[in-house]
Amino acid sequence: MIIDCHGHYTTVPAAHKRFREQQLARLADPGLPAPEPAQISDEEIRQSIDENQLRLLRERGGDLMIFSPQASAMEHHVPDPETAVAWARACNDLIHRVVTLYPEHFAGACQLPQTPNGPLEDSVVELRRCVEELGFVGCNLNPDPSGGHWTSRPLTDEYWFPLYEALVELDVPAMIHVSASCNPNFHALGAHYLNADTSAFMQLIEGDLFAEFPTLRFVIPHGGGAVPYHWGRYRGLADRLGRPALDGHVMGNVFFDTCVYHQPGIDLLCDVVDVDNVLFASEMLGAVRGVDPETGFHWDDTKRYLDAVDLPAEEKRKIFELNARRVYPRLDERLGVP
Amino acid sequence: MIIDCHGHYTTVPAAHKRFREQQLARLADPGLPAPEPAQISDEEIRQSIDENQLRLLRERGGDLMIFSPQASAMEHHVPDPETAVAWARACNDLIHRVVTLYPEHFAGACQLPQTPNGPLEDSVVELRRCVEELGFVGCNLNPDPSGGHWTSRPLTDEYWFPLYEALVELDVPAMIHVSASCNPNFHALGAHYLNADTSAFMQLIEGDLFAEFPTLRFVIPHGGGAVPYHWGRYRGLADRLGRPALDGHVMGNVFFDTCVYHQPGIDLLCDVVDVDNVLFASEMLGAVRGVDPETGFHWDDTKRYLDAVDLPAEEKRKIFELNARRVYPRLDERLGVP
Repeated sequence: MIIDCHGHYTTVPAAHKRFREQQLARLADPGLPAPEPAQISDEEIRQSIDENQLRLLRERGGDLMIFSPQASAMEHHVPDPETAVAWARACNDLIHRVVTLYPEHFAGACQLPQTPNGPLEDSVVELRRCVEELGFVGCNLNPDPSGGHWTSRPLTDEYWFPLYEALVELDVPAMIHVSASCNPNFHALGAHYLNADTSAFMQLIEGDLFAEFPTLRFVIPHGGGAVPYHWGRYRGLADRLGRPALDGHVMGNVFFDTCVYHQPGIDLLCDVVDVDNVLFASEMLGAVRGVDPETGFHWDDTKRYLDAVDLPAEEKRKIFELNARRVYPRLDERLGVP
Repeated sequence: MIIDCHGHYTTVPAAHKRFREQQLARLADPGLPAPEPAQISDEEIRQSIDENQLRLLRERGGDLMIFSPQASAMEHHVPDPETAVAWARACNDLIHRVVTLYPEHFAGACQLPQTPNGPLEDSVVELRRCVEELGFVGCNLNPDPSGGHWTSRPLTDEYWFPLYEALVELDVPAMIHVSASCNPNFHALGAHYLNADTSAFMQLIEGDLFAEFPTLRFVIPHGGGAVPYHWGRYRGLADRLGRPALDGHVMGNVFFDTCVYHQPGIDLLCDVVDVDNVLFASEMLGAVRGVDPETGFHWDDTKRYLDAVDLPAEEKRKIFELNARRVYPRLDERLGVP
């Protein structure tokens, strides 16, 4: 079985995007009526999925995708909590519709209604709703709700603890994933996402979060940002800063996905990071969608790179399936595994 | 000949640090007298260099290091222009002292007196002084003088053009190098530096700077941040965003150093990036200083990794020497090459 732990609903029906536009219009003009989430038919959802994520998942040999709302559209920088709650609910309800239509191929991970330095109660409520009522298996946690201004506190700060307590209790992991960039220095896909991955990892080295929450689990996407490429730097920095070695200190709780879009990058990831910490993912339909003229295959067809990695079959099975089932234990329930 | 293009004077005599403390004290209390740069003897400078950078350079087989002030101590976030000018001058004068004492082993790269969104005239003046009067061969350019708040404009913005005009006229490159982080989200060495490298590269993809300045040259340190590891992502993003292919668009003007502290990272760098764009460097004494218990050698002894890379001797000579002489053409003058 092949589980892709990182896919986004980037192909939502237009009516859902109009709902968002109406939300933003009302923030600009409070005299407008509060919009209602779009009425979207099953047929519209099927059309948006069948020829996109589902087709590609099947063509590439995948079985199940952990599916979450479009990351760049989370827009946590919009500071109104009520708007954030309504938007996250609408996005997550749409994911639930997809999962209900294709229970064998998709499992849900939810968007949280974060706002810049806003209280996390709403996020805890939405997480609980998605996991307990809708059967979601994880969530996306934005370490920078400001959208590139980085005004929030590091992930090791007590600010985040109420959310961590809920994650631990529900036994679901969080993928560390920022949203759109409002800072012209950071292209969302080419800088902000990778910077967030890198920064989050270093915050975890500096802190001691997993002593406080020994069963908390984070997935750092996009192959861990810059981290595996600079693995020697991080091992050396941990030593120089008097932090414990990475394996016990962070790598019992942190996992990297395989959203790295060329063979040498995947080779390095599988070489330097313990295979127990690597989860197969493609991020499709994500940042990069075309065909690499050098290979003739899609950049984000990451299964091809992993197939070509020199690892024993049992190690690859960890990357493709077993690690995901360990990190997202609620998957087994969805998969009907007793 | 082996040229290390990235070394910092991180071992300055204590009196130089006291001068900085006096500067900052006076900013807090303008009633204090304006401090004078420290009086430092040749002997003190020799002591600070002989057993540190020079010893390591020689032990590891290097010949010449392009040497600049301590990056994290540039502190461009301090907004007072007069203080920035005096500090940059003092730091650069000290580099000049080192270069004068060891002309065969060090060449200067200067710190610029940048301030957050401040005018660049002072930086142009100091650049000219260092290159024309002191014989420096390059400079460090901070793309985020705010120190982790990223309030400045992207490197492709016209704000930076006066400096680029001077760099082009003087025929010296700039290394893109941030300073200390004032943002608790970003550890300077473990996140801010790498994020800046990554962000700068993506800014250059988004813009068209080298059409405006065809001979401008940037060295992106720390192995290019996250870029080589995500080379497929950048090639694919350029395509998706309708930008030209990377080789003509940015890689005629952008170079990565080899400050990557493990063998798999250096292997990947040399595999995916054209060897014409890779410059040997160690950053010593820099971010990571200890011994890797897995190899028994210093993390930042990057020459060992390069020696082990599977490349023909003439390609390695480019990385170790010829590329540096091409990117820093004023080196030849210093080396006595006609």
